[in-house]
Amino acid sequence: MIKIRLYFLGTGAGLPSKERNTSSIALIHSDRNNETWLFDCGEATQHRIQTSPLRLSKINRIFITHLHGDHIFGLPGVLSSRSVQGVTSPLYLYGPTGLNKYVETSLSSSMTHLQYDLIYHEISDQQQIHIPNFIIHVAKLAHGIPSYGYRIEENDRPGELLVDQLKKLGIPPGPIYKRLKEGESVEWNGEIINGNDYLGPVKSGAHLTITGDTKPTKKTIELSNGADVLIHEATFSDQLSENAALFNHSTTTQAAQIAKQAGVKILILTHISPRFQLKDHVKLRAEATTIFANTYIAEDGWSFSVSRKSIESID
Amino acid sequence: MIKIRLYFLGTGAGLPSKERNTSSIALIHSDRNNETWLFDCGEATQHRIQTSPLRLSKINRIFITHLHGDHIFGLPGVLSSRSVQGVTSPLYLYGPTGLNKYVETSLSSSMTHLQYDLIYHEISDQQQIHIPNFIIHVAKLAHGIPSYGYRIEENDRPGELLVDQLKKLGIPPGPIYKRLKEGESVEWNGEIINGNDYLGPVKSGAHLTITGDTKPTKKTIELSNGADVLIHEATFSDQLSENAALFNHSTTTQAAQIAKQAGVKILILTHISPRFQLKDHVKLRAEATTIFANTYIAEDGWSFSVSRKSIESID
Repeated sequence: MIKIRLYFLGTGAGLPSKERNTSSIALIHSDRNNETWLFDCGEATQHRIQTSPLRLSKINRIFITHLHGDHIFGLPGVLSSRSVQGVTSPLYLYGPTGLNKYVETSLSSSMTHLQYDLIYHEISDQQQIHIPNFIIHVAKLAHGIPSYGYRIEENDRPGELLVDQLKKLGIPPGPIYKRLKEGESVEWNGEIINGNDYLGPVKSGAHLTITGDTKPTKKTIELSNGADVLIHEATFSDQLSENAALFNHSTTTQAAQIAKQAGVKILILTHISPRFQLKDHVKLRAEATTIFANTYIAEDGWSFSVSRKSIESID
Repeated sequence: MIKIRLYFLGTGAGLPSKERNTSSIALIHSDRNNETWLFDCGEATQHRIQTSPLRLSKINRIFITHLHGDHIFGLPGVLSSRSVQGVTSPLYLYGPTGLNKYVETSLSSSMTHLQYDLIYHEISDQQQIHIPNFIIHVAKLAHGIPSYGYRIEENDRPGELLVDQLKKLGIPPGPIYKRLKEGESVEWNGEIINGNDYLGPVKSGAHLTITGDTKPTKKTIELSNGADVLIHEATFSDQLSENAALFNHSTTTQAAQIAKQAGVKILILTHISPRFQLKDHVKLRAEATTIFANTYIAEDGWSFSVSRKSIESID
């Protein structure tokens, strides 16, 4: 069963190109009414949403990695259009110091009056954000300006109730099953039945790490350690490592080395320089897979499903 | 010969739709090295420029009519991408009070350091802006918030030198022709020749008026009086005049009445509500042409040529 879906709205770096828009990734909670979180919001993210299966009304959290324009210039448009569409549920906005001022000035200058509560949450290094069913770990990476990565850890869920075994004990289905599934101890025919003894294996929550722009850093290895998915920037090809160092970015191979050291299951590269075209993917991917086999290069409009335990499919 | 070309980058109102982006119109000076002026700059204007014949490097003036988000949220992207592309020539930015703060906060928040001088010019009602070869007249229209219209008046140019008549006088081509063309008096064989007597009719400069968002107002009639082209907003159809009044916008028929009273040559309607689709154009246009025959409905990507004296073609 698909539980979390990633949808890449924009996978380019710096400037939009005809093939790639500036950064934005959506995380869709398929089993929670398609509640949607955005990570970064480059200009024209709302335009990309219009031609995607996503809905502005479902977006209730936006996480910003850093304040460079190609990651935030679409925020005022998303926020105001969400309001114009009549959405009144609150929106939580996470990001570095200065995000609040940028957004508030954009909204007040344009005389935009949101019809919902916009709740700011300023992030800092090593912070943990507690959200129902999730813990988000924040780490400051290395990009010249404050730039953060997010590790999204879904809480584990209890295993399935072992109905067959309960039936063997002669316990019929009913309200008692719900109590047992929640791990309660229940008396049945004078005997104490501990629900935890009749649950299958715990279902592990998904663990994903999304970096902002960064050069290679141990902080990313720590943040993504053992994750199901690491989404790492790879602005440059292996050959352009000098550019990567100069501009505090990473190459394909550097990202692959991080993934390998972190022991993640899958690596997705994004934030690709507009100098590369889609036809360059084979080469860029090959650079990474030499080091970390399970690597993919994201494209705009690409969707990707993560089950509770593992990667299920790549669409 | 084509002298000024209009290119409609975005012709929608409020929200982008699949068919229309938010507001931006380019004015291209075909005989001045394709120098380009933008009027308004909705989100994703730089994306539209990428798929148009326009070049960011040619844009040297941007005029903002008012600060609603659908007219300004593309500015930070255009300004910063122009810099990233290596353009170093200054850019002049005209608009209402508050534009400076919005732009400066967007640039400073995103740590964008422009490689060119950005020169602000705050506009006000009844202002005249003098630009080489042009006078721009500014008028405050009626939109609830400060919203301005621009009348772009190109200076007249002297007529052609009547070479045949000069040759009849026995004056051969040479540097003297240049002086005569500039209206100088020149001595030839003891006779004073006044250049002005040997010039054809003055070539009238183009006069265009571009409104921001506005309900119908006499100010627009004054601003566009006798203009070659009036570009007027028509957010709503004739039937929706109550919405137009409520939101300080105009209907197709109201815009046509303004054009008729102003005695313009051609009316172009833009800023069309996203509730209308391209297939609704016939109806919208018919509402206007009943009152003012020479009316067109703008579409994204539509280009329109204005000669010095008259409308030459609609592409």
